[in-house]
Amino acid sequence: MKVLIVGGVAGGASAACRLRRLSEDAQIVLFEKGKYISYANCGLPYYIGGTIKDKDRLLVTKPETLRSRFNIDVRVENEVVSINRDKKTVTVVNHADGSRYEESYDKLILSPGGNPKRPKLPGIDLPGIFTLRTVPDTFRIDEYIKEHGSKSAVVVGAGFIGVEMAENLKERGLDVTIVEFLPQAVSNLDPEMAAILHRHLRENGIRLMFGTGVKGFEQKERLCVRLSDENELPADLVILSIGVAPDSSLVKDAGLPLGIRDSIRVDDTFQTGDPDIYAVGDAIDVKQFITGEETLLALAGPANRQGRAAGENVLGKRIQKDEGVIGSAILKVFGLTAASTGLNEKQLKEKKLPYLKTYVHPSDHATYYPNSTQLSMKLLFAPDGKIYGAQAVGAAGSDKRIDVIATAIRLGGTVYDLEKLELCYAPPYSSAKDPVNMLGFTAANMLRGDVKPFYAEDTDGLDRSKVTLLDVRTPEETATGMLDGAVNIPVDELRSRLSELPKDKPVYAYCAVGLRGYVASRILTQHGFDVYNLSGGMKTWRDVHD
Amino acid sequence: MKVLIVGGVAGGASAACRLRRLSEDAQIVLFEKGKYISYANCGLPYYIGGTIKDKDRLLVTKPETLRSRFNIDVRVENEVVSINRDKKTVTVVNHADGSRYEESYDKLILSPGGNPKRPKLPGIDLPGIFTLRTVPDTFRIDEYIKEHGSKSAVVVGAGFIGVEMAENLKERGLDVTIVEFLPQAVSNLDPEMAAILHRHLRENGIRLMFGTGVKGFEQKERLCVRLSDENELPADLVILSIGVAPDSSLVKDAGLPLGIRDSIRVDDTFQTGDPDIYAVGDAIDVKQFITGEETLLALAGPANRQGRAAGENVLGKRIQKDEGVIGSAILKVFGLTAASTGLNEKQLKEKKLPYLKTYVHPSDHATYYPNSTQLSMKLLFAPDGKIYGAQAVGAAGSDKRIDVIATAIRLGGTVYDLEKLELCYAPPYSSAKDPVNMLGFTAANMLRGDVKPFYAEDTDGLDRSKVTLLDVRTPEETATGMLDGAVNIPVDELRSRLSELPKDKPVYAYCAVGLRGYVASRILTQHGFDVYNLSGGMKTWRDVHD
Ligand SMILES: Cc1cc2nc3c(=O)[nH]c(=O)nc-3n(C[C@H](O)[C@H](O)[C@H](O)COP(=O)(O)OP(=O)(O)OC[C@H]3O[C@@H](n4cnc5c(N)ncnc54)[C@H](O)[C@@H]3O)c2cc1C
Ligand SMILES: Cc1cc2nc3c(=O)[nH]c(=O)nc-3n(C[C@H](O)[C@H](O)[C@H](O)COP(=O)(O)OP(=O)(O)OC[C@H]3O[C@@H](n4cnc5c(N)ncnc54)[C@H](O)[C@@H]3O)c2cc1C
Ligand SMILES: CC(C)(COP(=O)(O)OP(=O)(O)OC[C@H]1O[C@@H](n2cnc3c(N)ncnc32)[C@H](O)[C@@H]1OP(=O)(O)O)[C@@H](O)C(=O)NCCC(=O)NCCS
Ligand SMILES: CC(C)(COP(=O)(O)OP(=O)(O)OC[C@H]1O[C@@H](n2cnc3c(N)ncnc32)[C@H](O)[C@@H]1OP(=O)(O)O)[C@@H](O)C(=O)NCCC(=O)NCCS
Repeated sequence: MKVLIVGGVAGGASAACRLRRLSEDAQIVLFEKGKYISYANCGLPYYIGGTIKDKDRLLVTKPETLRSRFNIDVRVENEVVSINRDKKTVTVVNHADGSRYEESYDKLILSPGGNPKRPKLPGIDLPGIFTLRTVPDTFRIDEYIKEHGSKSAVVVGAGFIGVEMAENLKERGLDVTIVEFLPQAVSNLDPEMAAILHRHLRENGIRLMFGTGVKGFEQKERLCVRLSDENELPADLVILSIGVAPDSSLVKDAGLPLGIRDSIRVDDTFQTGDPDIYAVGDAIDVKQFITGEETLLALAGPANRQGRAAGENVLGKRIQKDEGVIGSAILKVFGLTAASTGLNEKQLKEKKLPYLKTYVHPSDHATYYPNSTQLSMKLLFAPDGKIYGAQAVGAAGSDKRIDVIATAIRLGGTVYDLEKLELCYAPPYSSAKDPVNMLGFTAANMLRGDVKPFYAEDTDGLDRSKVTLLDVRTPEETATGMLDGAVNIPVDELRSRLSELPKDKPVYAYCAVGLRGYVASRILTQHGFDVYNLSGGMKTWRDVHD
Repeated sequence: MKVLIVGGVAGGASAACRLRRLSEDAQIVLFEKGKYISYANCGLPYYIGGTIKDKDRLLVTKPETLRSRFNIDVRVENEVVSINRDKKTVTVVNHADGSRYEESYDKLILSPGGNPKRPKLPGIDLPGIFTLRTVPDTFRIDEYIKEHGSKSAVVVGAGFIGVEMAENLKERGLDVTIVEFLPQAVSNLDPEMAAILHRHLRENGIRLMFGTGVKGFEQKERLCVRLSDENELPADLVILSIGVAPDSSLVKDAGLPLGIRDSIRVDDTFQTGDPDIYAVGDAIDVKQFITGEETLLALAGPANRQGRAAGENVLGKRIQKDEGVIGSAILKVFGLTAASTGLNEKQLKEKKLPYLKTYVHPSDHATYYPNSTQLSMKLLFAPDGKIYGAQAVGAAGSDKRIDVIATAIRLGGTVYDLEKLELCYAPPYSSAKDPVNMLGFTAANMLRGDVKPFYAEDTDGLDRSKVTLLDVRTPEETATGMLDGAVNIPVDELRSRLSELPKDKPVYAYCAVGLRGYVASRILTQHGFDVYNLSGGMKTWRDVHD
C-alpha cells in the first residue's frame, strides 16, 4: 500500500510514524512544503523571548530519524498543489528545483494545518508586520528585532499566541501593546476569568486595548497601526495573531465537502468525502464531545492523536473512531497559568443549554505549608449534574485541576463524582479537600437545593429596597468597602443578631469568596429567610466588575 | 436531635461542621481528649523540620470558630471513655479537672483516629523515643531536640510518616538512619518504584537499613537501638513510625462488631452495628473500590469526606452512600514526589487478579522548554483494559498524572480512555502526548497484541542460548554496559541488518526506556520474528535491580 502524507508536523508526522509501526510494507511519502518537519510550533514564541535558546531544540524529530528509523520518504520543500482523485495522484511542486511531478497513492492523509489570518488591510505588506506559524517565521521575527533594534511591538489579537508573543516580546525587553477587537483576551475563558489575566498582564507592563480593531498600517517616521477608534499606534514591530484559518485548499479544489468555516469535513474515522483520503489536525472540523456539534480546534494534542488514529485507519484493518474533542487548553502568562476545558459560559448561553455555575477560590495546596497561592476556579454544569466545563487561573496547580476535570468530562462524570474524587493529598500538593472536591461540593450543594446562588453580574440589578444585601465579613474586611446598600453582620455574630434582618425580604448574602456567605445562608434559610449566596464572593465580584 | 462527636480533628470536625450547616437545631457536642482540635496532622513533620515555623499554623480552625460560627459545644481535654448503648449515653472524663460525667445522645459519631503502634520492646519507654500523631507529640520532639542538642536520629519504619520525618530531621541538621523491617520504603509503591526513592534518600544523606527489625532499646552512654541483625545503632533520638492501629476501643467495649485488624466495622453509610452510632476516619474499615474487599486507609482526604457524609447521614434525611476508597497517596521526598493510586502489583499478585503492566519514562513537560525532568511511571491494568492502579515518581508533575488516573479509576475508565484523554498542553506543562496518554498508548498496544512485553525481572531467567537478547540503543549508549549476552543493533540500522538475527529464536529487545525497543519489536514482528520488548527499558531494569 502506498500512502502519501501532506504536512510534516504534528498530524502528518504522527500519522507517518504510527502507520510505519503498524505496517512495515506500506510505502510512505511525507510531503512538507516548508524546509522543516516535526517542529515545535508551540515552542516558537519562547525562542523569540529567549527562553528556548537553541534553534535545534525547536526540531522535535529530525528528517534523518524519520528516514532511518521509520523508513519514511521525507520530502521537504515539496508542496502538494493538487489532488487528482480520478487518477489517485497528487501533483507536487519541488520548491528546491522548481520541478513539478505527480505521485500516485492508494491512501492519502492530509494534515496541512492552517494559515494565520492576514486580512487585506491597507499597508498589511509593510515591513515589520509578521505572523507566527513556522520556524522560518520565527527566525524572521528574531532577526528583524536584532537588525532593527526594535523597541516596541503591537500585538494584534489576544488569543493564546498573541498573549504568548506579548509575554515573550516583553521578556526580550520590548514595550508591548495588545490590540484586541473583543472586550477580553483568550476567548476560551469567560470574561471574569480573563479579567485576572488582564490585571496580571498590566502588572507586567503590557498595555491592553480591548474593543479596538485595526484598520490598517502606515509607514510614517515609524510603522503606525491605525486603530478603529481613529487613533494611531506607532510600533517597531507588529505581530498579527488574529487566528488561524483551516487550510482546505486541496480538498476544496478536489471537490470534496467542506466543514464549518471552510475546514475539511471528515467523519469519525477522519475520512473525508473520498474514502481514500483522510485528514487530521487544524485543517479539519471536529465534533464537540459534549454538544455533538461541529467545531474547530487548533491544538497540538488532538492533532497528534488524530494523526495517530488516521495512520491506523488507512490500513483498513482496525478502525479508531473519534469521539470528538472537549478542548482542554492552557496558557502561561508570566507568573500565572490559565487553563480551561469543555464549554464555557458564553458557549452555553449561545447554545441555550441550561446550566449552573459555581466559583471557588481555594489554595493550590495547604495554606499552612509555605508558598501556597490562591486559585480562581469556575465550574459549569447541567441541572442533572453533568459537567460542561471548567476554568482555573492561578500561580500554581490550575493545570492539575483542569486535567482532572477534563478526565471527568471525558468519562461522563458529574459534579457528584467530583465530590467523591480521591486525589493525592500531602501538604505541598493539595488540601484534604482538593479544590476539585470543593467545586464538586459547592455545585452539588446548589443542585441539592441547600444553597441558592446569586452571581456578581446580578448585584447591580438588585432593587435595594426589596432585598437585604448582607455582608457577612468582619468589620476589618468591610472597612475597605462594601457593596452599595449592604448591611454588615459578621457570620460569627449572625445567630444572635437575626432580629436585625427583616423577614419579609429575601437576603442576598456575600463574603470574600463565598464560603462564609454559604454558612450564613444555611443559618438564615433554616430560620425561615429566603436566602441567596454570592458565588465566588467579592473576589469573583471584583473580577466581574473589573 | 442531640449528636455527640468523639474526636475533634479530620473526621470529627468535618462531621460537626457539615451537620451544623445542614441542621441549625441539632445540639452538637464535640469531645476531644487532647488539648487541640482541628489541627494539621499532615503538617506536623514540617514543623519539626522548620518548614512550618509558626505553631498557630498547625491549627486549621480554632475552637472559637467552631463555637461562634457553628454553634458547636467543643469540649477539649474531655475523653469519652465508654459508650452506654442501653442508656444512649457516653461516659466522659474531663482531664482538666478530673471529673467524670455522662452525656446522652440521639446519635453518636466516632472519629477517634488511630494510635501509633508502640510495641512492647525492651527499653521502649526510655527517654528520646517518640511517636508522632498529635500537636503535643510534635512539640515534645521539637523541644527534646532543642534541649538535648540531638545530632542523630534513628527512624524506625519507612512508611509515609517515617520518610517525612527522616527528611525533616535531616533538614534540621540531624544525621538520620531509617531502619525498616521490609525490604523497601513506602509500601504502597512497588519495589522498583520505591528504589528511585531509596537512591534519592541516600543521595540526600539518609542512611537506609532495610530488612532490619528493631529488638529493643538500651540506654548506654547514648541511647542505643538494638537491631535484629544483632548490631546496635546509637542515636540521640528515635522516631517510631511503624504504623497506626485503628482506635476501636470504644466500640469494642460497647460490644459492636469490629472490622479487619480491630478496626470499627461500618456499612456504606458509616453506620456501625448500632443504628445510632456512626464512625469515620482512620478507625474504620472501608471497602476497596476496585476489589470490594475490606481494607484500612489512614488518610486525611477520606477521613474528611467520610466525616462530611456521616454528618449528613445522622440526620436520616438524605443518605450519602460510600462507594469505597481507591487509596490515592503522595509523598514529598526532598526534591522528588512519589504518588500512587489504586492497587499496586504486590496487591494484585496477592489477590491473584490477572493483570498487565507498563512502564514509561516521559518528561514532565516538553523537553524543548527549559527545566523538564524525567518521570518514572507504572500503570497496572486488567486484560480487559480496566485500570487497576498507577505509580509515578519524579521531580515534577507526578501529582497531576496520578490525580488524572485516580479520576479515571473512580469513573470506571480503561487504558483506552487514557489514550483519548484531552489534557492541557502548552510547553511548560506537558507534551502534546501527555505522559498519561503515553501510559494509555503503551498499555493499549499490549492489549491489542501489537507488542509483547517482557519485564526487567525476567531478564535473569532468560536462557541466553534459546533467545536473542537484542540491545537496540546506539553504540554510545551501550558503551556504558549492556545486559549479559546481548547483541547490539541500533534500531535505526535494524532493517538492513535483519540477517544478523537468527529467525528460529525469540528476540528480546530492549533500549533505554522502551520506546525504541517497541519500534524495533514492531519491525521484527512484521519480519516474522517472535519478539518481546522490555517495558520501561534499561531505566526500569536498573530500578528493578537496584
Ligand atoms: C506559535 C504557536 C504556538 C502554539 N502553541 C500551542 C500550544 O501551546 N498548545 C497546543 O496544543 N497547540 C499549540 N499550537 C497549535 C499546534 O501547533 C497546532 O494545533 C498543530 O501543530 C496542528 O498540527 P497540524 O498537523 O494540523 O498542522 P501543522 O503542525 O501546522 O503542520 C502542517 C504542515 O503542513 C504543511 N503543508 C501545508 N500544506 C501543504 C501542502 N500542500 N504540501 C506540503 N506541505 C503542506 C505546512 O507547511 C505545515 O508544516 C501553537 C501553534 C503556533 C503556531
Ligand atoms: C504525622 C502525620 C502526617 C500525615 N500526613 C498525611 C498526609 O500527608 N496526607 C494524608 O492524607 N494523611 C496524612 N496523615 C493522616 C491523617 O492525618 C489522618 O488520616 C486523619 O487525620 C484521620 O482523621 P481522623 O478523624 O480519623 O483521626 P484524627 O485526625 O487522628 O483525629 C482523632 C482525634 O480523636 C481524638 N480521640 C480519640 N479517642 C477519643 C476519645 N475517646 N475521646 C475524645 N477524643 C478522642 C484524638 O485525640 C484525635 O485528636 C498524617 C498523619 C500524621 C500523624
Ligand atoms: C514526534 C512525531 C514525529 C511523532 O512520532 P511518534 O513516534 O508517533 O511519537 P512519539 O515519539 O511521541 O512516541 C509515541 C509512540 O511511542 C510509544 N512509546 C512511548 N513511550 C514508550 C515506552 N516507554 N515504551 C514503549 N513504547 C513507548 C507510544 O506508544 C507511541 O507509539 P504508538 O503510537 O504506536 O502507540 C510527531 O508527533 C511530531 O512531529 N511532533 C512534533 C510536532 C508537533 O507535535 N508540534 C506541535 C506541538 S509543539
Ligand atoms: C476544617 C474542618 C474544621 C472542617 O470544616 P468545614 O467547614 O467542613 O470545611 P472547609 O472549611 O474545608 O469548607 C468546606 C465547606 O465549605 C463549602 N465551601 C468551600 N468553598 C466555598 C465557596 N467558595 N463558596 C461556597 N461554599 C464553599 C464547601 O461546600 C463545604 O461545605 P459542605 O461540606 O457543606 O458542602 C475540619 O476538616 C478540620 O478540622 N480539618 C483540619 C484537620 C485535618 O483535616 N487534618 C488532616 C489533614 S492535615
